[in-house]
Amino acid sequence: MDAVGRTIYLDYGAATPLDARVRTAMEPYGSELFFNPSAAYDEARRVRADIERARQTIAHLMGARADNLVFTAGATEANNLAFAALSDDAHVVSDAIEHESILACVERHAHAIVDVAGDGRIDPADVAEAVTPATELVSVGLANGEIGTVQPLRALARVVAQERARRLSAGEGRPIWLHTDASQAATALSINVSSLGVDLMTLSAAKMYGPKQVGLLWADDGIVLAPLIAGGGQERGLRSGTENVAGIIGFAHAFELASQLRASEMRRLEELRLRLVRPLTSAFPNAVIAGPRNVRLRLPGLLHLSFPGVEARRLVLLLGNEGVLVATGSACAASKMRISHVLSAIGMDEQTAAGSLRMTLGRPTTADEVDAAAGTIIRVVAAEYGRLGIRP
Amino acid sequence: MDAVGRTIYLDYGAATPLDARVRTAMEPYGSELFFNPSAAYDEARRVRADIERARQTIAHLMGARADNLVFTAGATEANNLAFAALSDDAHVVSDAIEHESILACVERHAHAIVDVAGDGRIDPADVAEAVTPATELVSVGLANGEIGTVQPLRALARVVAQERARRLSAGEGRPIWLHTDASQAATALSINVSSLGVDLMTLSAAKMYGPKQVGLLWADDGIVLAPLIAGGGQERGLRSGTENVAGIIGFAHAFELASQLRASEMRRLEELRLRLVRPLTSAFPNAVIAGPRNVRLRLPGLLHLSFPGVEARRLVLLLGNEGVLVATGSACAASKMRISHVLSAIGMDEQTAAGSLRMTLGRPTTADEVDAAAGTIIRVVAAEYGRLGIRP
Repeated sequence: MDAVGRTIYLDYGAATPLDARVRTAMEPYGSELFFNPSAAYDEARRVRADIERARQTIAHLMGARADNLVFTAGATEANNLAFAALSDDAHVVSDAIEHESILACVERHAHAIVDVAGDGRIDPADVAEAVTPATELVSVGLANGEIGTVQPLRALARVVAQERARRLSAGEGRPIWLHTDASQAATALSINVSSLGVDLMTLSAAKMYGPKQVGLLWADDGIVLAPLIAGGGQERGLRSGTENVAGIIGFAHAFELASQLRASEMRRLEELRLRLVRPLTSAFPNAVIAGPRNVRLRLPGLLHLSFPGVEARRLVLLLGNEGVLVATGSACAASKMRISHVLSAIGMDEQTAAGSLRMTLGRPTTADEVDAAAGTIIRVVAAEYGRLGIRP
Repeated sequence: MDAVGRTIYLDYGAATPLDARVRTAMEPYGSELFFNPSAAYDEARRVRADIERARQTIAHLMGARADNLVFTAGATEANNLAFAALSDDAHVVSDAIEHESILACVERHAHAIVDVAGDGRIDPADVAEAVTPATELVSVGLANGEIGTVQPLRALARVVAQERARRLSAGEGRPIWLHTDASQAATALSINVSSLGVDLMTLSAAKMYGPKQVGLLWADDGIVLAPLIAGGGQERGLRSGTENVAGIIGFAHAFELASQLRASEMRRLEELRLRLVRPLTSAFPNAVIAGPRNVRLRLPGLLHLSFPGVEARRLVLLLGNEGVLVATGSACAASKMRISHVLSAIGMDEQTAAGSLRMTLGRPTTADEVDAAAGTIIRVVAAEYGRLGIRP
């Protein structure tokens, strides 16, 4: 805990608390409005109408058509659904720092994984080279959840458009689409599907101070998805099962809030991140910051910092004892004992990677919290270096 | 509304309200305990431990091993997951009154659909006849959600055991399993997996006054499931995506309550059902009750009643205007304009089927509500018959 005994949470990349305004909007749907939206009476029809209004809100915020959204139980399911549309002999292109749910789907197909630079950025020319006449999907996350790298989606869209034009003039019928998992980006970056030039997009309410267990896949007109879960035919037959009414309502409210706050939060989080990074790097000149230096190329509230020689997992527990909650590597995977695939991909040496913390600042983060956390981290890391006899 | 202006909800088969005690148990996990259970600090580890304790509770109530549960977003996903384990050339056996999510999965395989009797019951001899050497799964719901029929699972388990024994002595390696979707049954029937003799079971918290969007598939030792959703490796790699912490905690509490209340609720609901059915059938001698007469062979709180000549969908809206909420056919499917497949399967003529209401009583239902609802239904149905010039 800090001086007044509070816990300082710096792991908003792993989970965001539900915004109180979102909670209030959801509450009626958990209690008096618990109806099955497929029922025929007016009370249920109003619930159905509320879902459809929420779908419109979300679509509008993405610059998309409401008919093209499929609500899922989260980003992982949405990512899996994006890949379910592919032919059996489809080739896919992705990159080495994607989320496990993308990499797991990629491995089920013929594929090429493009390398990334030391800051995690993809070179669109590498993607152009990796694309084959059999490529049906290029899947690149808008922002990486571990080191915060923002990818050049518009340039990737041009690569895909070029290949599409080539196939058209060659009379080849196979489609090619650009998918992005924008889950980690929605609070920080504009995610208008037209501006980004993508054909499919994954989003998650759980990463934007909305409810957990609700995400979506948007797929542009003309993309024929295949359901992962069949049954009652909800979500235009693309995702059966009674709709997550409260979750969808909460998703829309959380997304509206995130959109309103995006610009100011982006500036505020960038300042707070600088306030956190400065004392840490001046106390430990050997510390290594991962991800792009340019704030326009990375998530503003994410700081990935490695203390070479220290064991990050131990550091997380020691910091936790002092009330500062941070992550080591990606919090999404159930097993995290090995070096993160993201850090391997950016060419970080093992000793540095093993000492990596991910600190993610969020909407509730204050300057006082950042100052207190920096003090605690310096004290704990210094003690570790002392214990290990390492001079940082 | 009834005399004092309240709505009388008689559609607990479509959706149950969240029990206030379950809500209270879940609340901390929606607010201060929002942590990602895969994070390394103690706060997140305690959340992980709470999930595992809930898993133990649920497993104990089913007579199962906690390691063999996979949490899903609901019964539909769990049913799909049960079928995902089958070989490409597997044959499956099911029956004509299963939920759409079962029928949709059945259709993806070579299959046999056994007929049911007029009361919806399956004859185990028919299943024995339908099983082939290629049959890998027999899937029969414990209780039907539309007409309430309880199926002879133990007898079906003997059929499956006999085929298993035959294959063993014949040296045939193909497995055969019995799956049941027990979602509709959990508040009324004992669902001990050993007593029932099943190998896989689907359950849903949403049908037992628990949270929506959480269900599970139990699969016995030795059954190798294939994930529908790949990624971070949660749920032993069988269902990736951050765990539904609040949902799983709520599921365990709801299941405990349902188990404690099961015997008394079963008697109480059966009495209330009689109290509802008597005035309706004496006012309308032409009304047809579907499902078994013997209470041991049907869900105690479900009344499926048809008023031949009346249009049920219109009746539902008229009753809704009077504050009595009931269902027509299955509420699960997004489109319900055709005659239900369940009513076709039991051989109900179209005119009778088209006039069918499903009334499901629940934990909050009182005798006063039943009396008021019966009065309203008699009045509304009589007016409809009058308008149509039919003498019931």
